[in-house]
Amino acid sequence: MNINVLPGFQELLPKEQIAFNRLKRTIEDIYELYGFRPIETPVLERAEVLLTKGGGETDKQIYQFEKGDTKLAMRFDLTVPLARYVAKNQNELVFPFKRYAIDRVYRGEKPQAGRFREFYQCDIDVIGRDTLDLSYDAEIPSIIASIFSSLELDFTIKINNRKILNGLFESLDIKDSVSVLRTLDSIEKVGEKKTKEELKDIGLDEKQIEEIFNFYKLNTKTNEGILTSLKALEISSDIFKKGVEELEFVLQEVETLGIGESVKIDLTVARGLDYYTGTVYETILNKYPEIGSVCGGGRYDDLAGYYTNQKFPGVGISIGLTRLFDQLKNKGEINLEDDTPTVMLVLPLTEDRKLCLELADTLRENFIPTEVAPVGNMKKALNYANKLNIPYVIFIGEDEIKENKYTIKNMITGEQKSVAQEDILEAF
Amino acid sequence: MNINVLPGFQELLPKEQIAFNRLKRTIEDIYELYGFRPIETPVLERAEVLLTKGGGETDKQIYQFEKGDTKLAMRFDLTVPLARYVAKNQNELVFPFKRYAIDRVYRGEKPQAGRFREFYQCDIDVIGRDTLDLSYDAEIPSIIASIFSSLELDFTIKINNRKILNGLFESLDIKDSVSVLRTLDSIEKVGEKKTKEELKDIGLDEKQIEEIFNFYKLNTKTNEGILTSLKALEISSDIFKKGVEELEFVLQEVETLGIGESVKIDLTVARGLDYYTGTVYETILNKYPEIGSVCGGGRYDDLAGYYTNQKFPGVGISIGLTRLFDQLKNKGEINLEDDTPTVMLVLPLTEDRKLCLELADTLRENFIPTEVAPVGNMKKALNYANKLNIPYVIFIGEDEIKENKYTIKNMITGEQKSVAQEDILEAF
Repeated sequence: MNINVLPGFQELLPKEQIAFNRLKRTIEDIYELYGFRPIETPVLERAEVLLTKGGGETDKQIYQFEKGDTKLAMRFDLTVPLARYVAKNQNELVFPFKRYAIDRVYRGEKPQAGRFREFYQCDIDVIGRDTLDLSYDAEIPSIIASIFSSLELDFTIKINNRKILNGLFESLDIKDSVSVLRTLDSIEKVGEKKTKEELKDIGLDEKQIEEIFNFYKLNTKTNEGILTSLKALEISSDIFKKGVEELEFVLQEVETLGIGESVKIDLTVARGLDYYTGTVYETILNKYPEIGSVCGGGRYDDLAGYYTNQKFPGVGISIGLTRLFDQLKNKGEINLEDDTPTVMLVLPLTEDRKLCLELADTLRENFIPTEVAPVGNMKKALNYANKLNIPYVIFIGEDEIKENKYTIKNMITGEQKSVAQEDILEAF
Repeated sequence: MNINVLPGFQELLPKEQIAFNRLKRTIEDIYELYGFRPIETPVLERAEVLLTKGGGETDKQIYQFEKGDTKLAMRFDLTVPLARYVAKNQNELVFPFKRYAIDRVYRGEKPQAGRFREFYQCDIDVIGRDTLDLSYDAEIPSIIASIFSSLELDFTIKINNRKILNGLFESLDIKDSVSVLRTLDSIEKVGEKKTKEELKDIGLDEKQIEEIFNFYKLNTKTNEGILTSLKALEISSDIFKKGVEELEFVLQEVETLGIGESVKIDLTVARGLDYYTGTVYETILNKYPEIGSVCGGGRYDDLAGYYTNQKFPGVGISIGLTRLFDQLKNKGEINLEDDTPTVMLVLPLTEDRKLCLELADTLRENFIPTEVAPVGNMKKALNYANKLNIPYVIFIGEDEIKENKYTIKNMITGEQKSVAQEDILEAF
């Protein structure tokens, strides 16, 4: 029988799992420091609930099946269930509703390197009822910065505003902005010349194409330079002006917070095509730009339109944790040395384990993770401690019991000493 | 559209989720204090991997479906995936392998009160290679005791040893012990008389039935009384004697640990029929015996026999967390008052938010969860803090900026005071 996990599923060894959990906990702790509250939604929902927002691609990827009379599906992201949750609980929730969710989602994609079929997303969203203040857009970069600073990873937050793109297209009288954005999205892959030809094929004229390329050329300037240039462009669209204003506000706040150097306007960032309506974010690791965006998101006007008539605008981000961990592990950026929470291994050298059990109890009461080994076999116990990087081993034999002492060995330095029993908490 | 979750799926409001997570974290922390290491296995596996151990009931309940050419199934417990994991990684793991897993499992049961289709199990297991010392059986009750003491719930750990039952049946020349155990299992429901009739129908004679009932009558005695009586029974089975020895050892250690009063021998505890081979545990809450066992498990000889020829004996327990939480919530035993991690809400009263953002940063650097409200609207901000039980609100207006102070309001006492900016960390 094939006892490997299915392709596209990540399963870790304990030391890797501990490192993964540490990463997850860092993100969770920071989300809580910013006042986000946890919610969990089921992995399985009615298929009709999850598929409503899907398009062709998502529908093909989603795991769905029937059980009895019910069509079930496994969630493919945490946003659609959030929308359903907010619609359902709108009278119970306090708005703005700041929620985090760190949980697994499922996509039955073709397996390929770096793509997972089961993976963790770490999401935060701030949801307003009817309206949501722009200051929440400005808070998002500081949360991203806290996380990647805590992880000691150099990062750049790329920021843009969808209203600027939409306003530009409006002013150029381009109707099919979706196709244009999709074409522009591959410019780095296919080059400028090919992209221009494709835009012509879609039906854009020379002047429209030129204006778009002039616009994107601003991207090489500084944040300030881009803002100045955007304001100087003679674009008569109100939505464009609104977008520039919002972008400027977010940038100002980011400067105030002292993280301005890590935030860069990038006019090419569009983040999908329909959902986002204002600020959009992507985050790259400066040392590993090839990983692509490790944290993205943005502002949207209408979270739950499919489930309710009530408007819920919001802003949020998501970190694809499984892929991030996998990539960082491959780059050697994950510390895999701590294989265990255990700080102390207590080894009884005589059948009388009373003192051992009591010591273990005391240590645990003082929040020191402690294991008690079976009686005897010192070599085996030391080997166990070594393999798991347990830093201390305490021996308790007849001498120790008689003389009210413990023998404690520091497994890192190899030093071994006797301590009086009452001094044990100060001995390591 | 029906936007409720499916029947049998638990979805919580934020304040409930926070209480649930607190419960989960308590269990996790205690598992780690005892040196257990986390692992996670996928929710989805090849159907052939998960179904191997199933019987009729499990097969019917399991969620399974095809995607492409692969038959997939959702795990219905955490033990079967653990067995596959240990078989697969046996050369990488350090034994005894102490692992914990706190994760969701899936059972497509008929929905009924108190039964869930998606629920958390909190499992620990200690797995040996070839052998596993009996002292691990004795450690389990102290872990259970730590957890339920931490949760401030009065509990009784019922303990038994499968070898005693198996030895008894062997000595009575009863072959079909499975049917006998199943019949005895419903004795509390159907009564002694009906049970005796059913045992007769299975093919037991008067003498066999009498011996069994005499055996179960020992159950009313104290632990010491039961042990003495078991030893006095003239049962010539070696396996019976081994079982009594093991039970006595576990009881001794439990006494040493000072939790003897919470542990009670219960000769009727059998925990399923085939899997367990030694010590077995169940845990009831003294105040709510009607909930039934909230934590059970036991010793088994062969974890992974379906996947490997290598023997992996182990001992473990599982807490059904979703059901436990649901029951405790219904009994009013869950504190639902903390709706938020947020300790401090900072309210800017002027457009200049610099000081607010800097203060929030400082507070978060000191691990104080902090939110910044949009500018203005004091009533709205206080209302928000009130509804979420945020204990402190800081106002920062032009006066505060000019005079280098903060105005801080204690939302519980209503007290409001001015503090110098440099003293803020000591002001609450």
